[in-house]
Amino acid sequence: MPLPPLQPSQELLSPEALAAALRQIGAERYHNLHPFHRRLHNGELTLDQVRAWALNRYYYQAMIPIKDATILARMDDPALRRVWRQRIVDHDGEEGQTDGQAGGIDRWLKLTDGLGLIRDEVISTRHILPATRFAVEAYVHFVRDRTLLEAIASSLTEMFSPQIISERVSGMLANYSFISEETLAYFGKRLTQAPRDADFALAYVQRHAVTLETQAAALAALRFKCDVLWSQLDALEHAYVDPGLPPPGAWRPGELLVPGAAR
Amino acid sequence: MPLPPLQPSQELLSPEALAAALRQIGAERYHNLHPFHRRLHNGELTLDQVRAWALNRYYYQAMIPIKDATILARMDDPALRRVWRQRIVDHDGEEGQTDGQAGGIDRWLKLTDGLGLIRDEVISTRHILPATRFAVEAYVHFVRDRTLLEAIASSLTEMFSPQIISERVSGMLANYSFISEETLAYFGKRLTQAPRDADFALAYVQRHAVTLETQAAALAALRFKCDVLWSQLDALEHAYVDPGLPPPGAWRPGELLVPGAAR
Repeated sequence: MPLPPLQPSQELLSPEALAAALRQIGAERYHNLHPFHRRLHNGELTLDQVRAWALNRYYYQAMIPIKDATILARMDDPALRRVWRQRIVDHDGEEGQTDGQAGGIDRWLKLTDGLGLIRDEVISTRHILPATRFAVEAYVHFVRDRTLLEAIASSLTEMFSPQIISERVSGMLANYSFISEETLAYFGKRLTQAPRDADFALAYVQRHAVTLETQAAALAALRFKCDVLWSQLDALEHAYVDPGLPPPGAWRPGELLVPGAAR
Repeated sequence: MPLPPLQPSQELLSPEALAAALRQIGAERYHNLHPFHRRLHNGELTLDQVRAWALNRYYYQAMIPIKDATILARMDDPALRRVWRQRIVDHDGEEGQTDGQAGGIDRWLKLTDGLGLIRDEVISTRHILPATRFAVEAYVHFVRDRTLLEAIASSLTEMFSPQIISERVSGMLANYSFISEETLAYFGKRLTQAPRDADFALAYVQRHAVTLETQAAALAALRFKCDVLWSQLDALEHAYVDPGLPPPGAWRPGELLVPGAAR
């Protein structure tokens, strides 16, 4: 797949300078800067707009283990695979567990349950925005088609996630009567999982991105991943906030609710 | 890639009823219904908004022969390949020709030239919206990963294109001083090419979609393709019209203009 030509920097970066350059990408492009995120945690969204977010983001959550299995399948080194497989365990959990051993996908469904959305309809993913599907699948295709270094570098948005999760949890708990600690259980777990994953991935990238070309590729991979996240919020905002025009066939406010769900 | 489950209709459709069902999808989902298209041909867009459209859509144009080569590579039948390869010729043209033998991509570049955009920057595709990239690549991945029938059915938006092209050409010529017959040369050619291509593809789909499952798959493929087109206009509208918020790194009005380009 043609991608825009990389623009390697003129000088080789030290591991520390590479980490700083990666963090700079987050400071400029991570989706905590998106107006939809700000409105979400400030309590400015309606219940239906929060539902649209949770419904669409379910697809992202559901594809994360598929993304990670795709990366796992490309790793030659058992030691590397042993570390990476934990991500799949974290998202898929253990059979029949509903408490602390439940996986991230199940915890996300607690959120959509709490918002009154019909669980089977959420899981079907039939009602998400096409732009959500295209962005999430672009991520899976990226980790399949690009180098392993780029695949791993694209996970580095987790370097930035503790901050957004803290903002989101405290803001949503404070501002929405329909949100509880239980429905936000997904994010609590991620506060410890994401930094562990990000530390490992960053060390891998620092160890393997040691030429102008590979450093440029790692930086571009993280930019790409920020685009994947940002464009999902763009699509939500366009469809459900401003101008509020869902594409044909996508979920419309009021649809797919369990009997008695709050309006 | 998991896709939403198909919902086969209860009864097998005749070839005529299948064609009618495909046309109905166009009537409900084709991007001529999108507000951005209406504004484009009504003369309601600024020069920069038209530039954003042409710059982004260049990527779609540039990937069409790659999409068609992907389909060609999956065809066992030389007779089928002989027909399909014409699409690639139409878009790629002949070396060094700039008149009637030029390809569709070159004709699209006449449009971006006419709008004052720096040609090499357009061709680099570095400045397009991530959502454009994701949607266009979803189309290429679709024709690679799904059945040949679905790949061919996804091209059937060409059944609907003569109408949108007529609206676009007459509307844009009438409403924008910066648009001329020459800059719109791309669309003139498509008025004859698209119906020829659509007739062939429709006949193929009618001949091969003869079970409940394959008919449902063909209809879903056309819905998917409508989503690909619609989400591109959604992204343009969100970034450049309302609220006018291009994602980080995407083209901003005023950028990438040749010296002396109209403002």
